[in-house]
Amino acid sequence: QLVDLVLEHFAPKVLPLEGVSLVITAGPTREPIDPVRYISNHSSGKMGFALAEAAVQLGAQVTLIAGPVQLATPAGVKRIDVVTADQMYQVALEQAISAHIFIGCAAVADYKVAQVATQKLKKTSDDSTSLTLVKNPDIIAAVAALTSQRPFTVGFAAETQDVANYARQKLVKKKLDLICANDVSLSNQGFNSEQNALTVFWADGEQQFGLQAKTELAQQLLLLINERYLHEKSH
Amino acid sequence: QLVDLVLEHFAPKVLPLEGVSLVITAGPTREPIDPVRYISNHSSGKMGFALAEAAVQLGAQVTLIAGPVQLATPAGVKRIDVVTADQMYQVALEQAISAHIFIGCAAVADYKVAQVATQKLKKTSDDSTSLTLVKNPDIIAAVAALTSQRPFTVGFAAETQDVANYARQKLVKKKLDLICANDVSLSNQGFNSEQNALTVFWADGEQQFGLQAKTELAQQLLLLINERYLHEKSH
Repeated sequence: QLVDLVLEHFAPKVLPLEGVSLVITAGPTREPIDPVRYISNHSSGKMGFALAEAAVQLGAQVTLIAGPVQLATPAGVKRIDVVTADQMYQVALEQAISAHIFIGCAAVADYKVAQVATQKLKKTSDDSTSLTLVKNPDIIAAVAALTSQRPFTVGFAAETQDVANYARQKLVKKKLDLICANDVSLSNQGFNSEQNALTVFWADGEQQFGLQAKTELAQQLLLLINERYLHEKSH
Repeated sequence: QLVDLVLEHFAPKVLPLEGVSLVITAGPTREPIDPVRYISNHSSGKMGFALAEAAVQLGAQVTLIAGPVQLATPAGVKRIDVVTADQMYQVALEQAISAHIFIGCAAVADYKVAQVATQKLKKTSDDSTSLTLVKNPDIIAAVAALTSQRPFTVGFAAETQDVANYARQKLVKKKLDLICANDVSLSNQGFNSEQNALTVFWADGEQQFGLQAKTELAQQLLLLINERYLHEKSH
C-alpha cells in the first residue's frame, strides 16, 4: 500500500489532452477596402486565446491562427498571424490536415470587397456610393469537408437571435462534429467581454455552459470536445 | 543685475499656450454595418493623443474627442469618447464654439452604411452583395464654416499619393486656417506608427517637419499652430 502511494506520487501525471494536437482560429478577420479603410467585426479573440491557453495546460499541442487582435500569445502556443479571410483559409487548411481537432473560433468575415483600391479612395461629390462585396471562402466548412486527414471539426455560431436554431442548422449544413453557440446580442457576454455563456450542440446531444470567465469556460469546453472526439474516434 | 536674475528665477513661468483652449479630435470612427460588423480605418489615434498631451504640457486647456482607440488619456486632458462620425460631429460642434483652436486629427469615415441592420446579417446564397453607403457630415468643414464663435481651424490630410496637391485643395475647399499633410503610404510613418513626418500648409506659407517621434512632432506643431493663431488674431 505504501509502495502504491509512493509510485503514484512519483508517476508522471498524464494530462487529459496529452498527445492531442489542436488548431484553433481566433479573432476577427479584416477585409481591406483601400490602403486605409477596412471592414471588420467586434471579435476580440479572447475566447480563442483562452481555448489555446487552456489546451496547452491540459497537455495538448496547439497552433493558434490569429486575426488582428491586441492579445499576447499564451505560453507554449505556436501562433500564426493573418489579416484577411483568404489568408486565414490558406493557413487553416495547411494546418488542419495535421491536427486531431480543429476549432474555428475566429469571426471570419463572410464577405470581402470585390475590388480593393490600391490608393485611398477620394470622397466623390455623390451623396451615396456602394461597395460590392463577394463571398469569402467558408473555412470551417472546407475543413469539415476534407476527405482525408480530416480533423474532428468544431465550429462557433455567434448569433443575435434564434441562436439554437441557427446553430443546429449550421452544424448540419457545414457537416461539423460539434458547434458552440453564443448570443452576442447580450452585452455581458461574447464579443469583447471577459465572460461567455455557450450552448454546445452535436448530432445527438447538447450541453449548456452558464455565464463564466472565458478562461474557465475554455477548460470545460475542451474537456467536452475531447470527450466527443474520443467517442467519435472509437466508433 | 543680481536683482533681475533673482526676479527671473522666482517669476512664474508663462507657458506658451497658457490661456489657450484647444479641442482635438483623434482616432478613427467606426461605422456599424450590423450589431457585429463595421467599417473603420487604420488610424491609431497616437498623433491626436500626442497633440493633446503636448498641448497640456505647453499650458493649454484641452478637450480630446476620441474615436475607438486603445490609448490611455493623457494627464490633464478632458476626454470625450465617441464611436461614429455622426457622434463625433455632434460633440465636435458643441465643443468647438468655446475653443480658441480646433484640431481635426481624427480619421473620420467619409461614408456610413445607409441602412444599419439591427440583427446580424445572414450570409445569403448569392456570391456577391452590395453595401450602400451615404456621406457622413464633414466635421472639419462644419467647424471652419461657423459664422460666430469660430475657432482657428486646423485639419489633417492623410493621403497615399500627390500629398501636397490634395492638402492645398483641402485647405481652400474646406476654408481651413492650416492643414497638416502626411503620406500614409510610407510604412514607417503615419497610421499606427510611433513616428510621423508632416508638411504644414497655410494660405501664404508652408513648413516641413522631418520624420520624428509623434510626441516631439506634436510639440513643434503646436508651437507653429499657436504662432499662426496669434498672427491671424492680430490681423
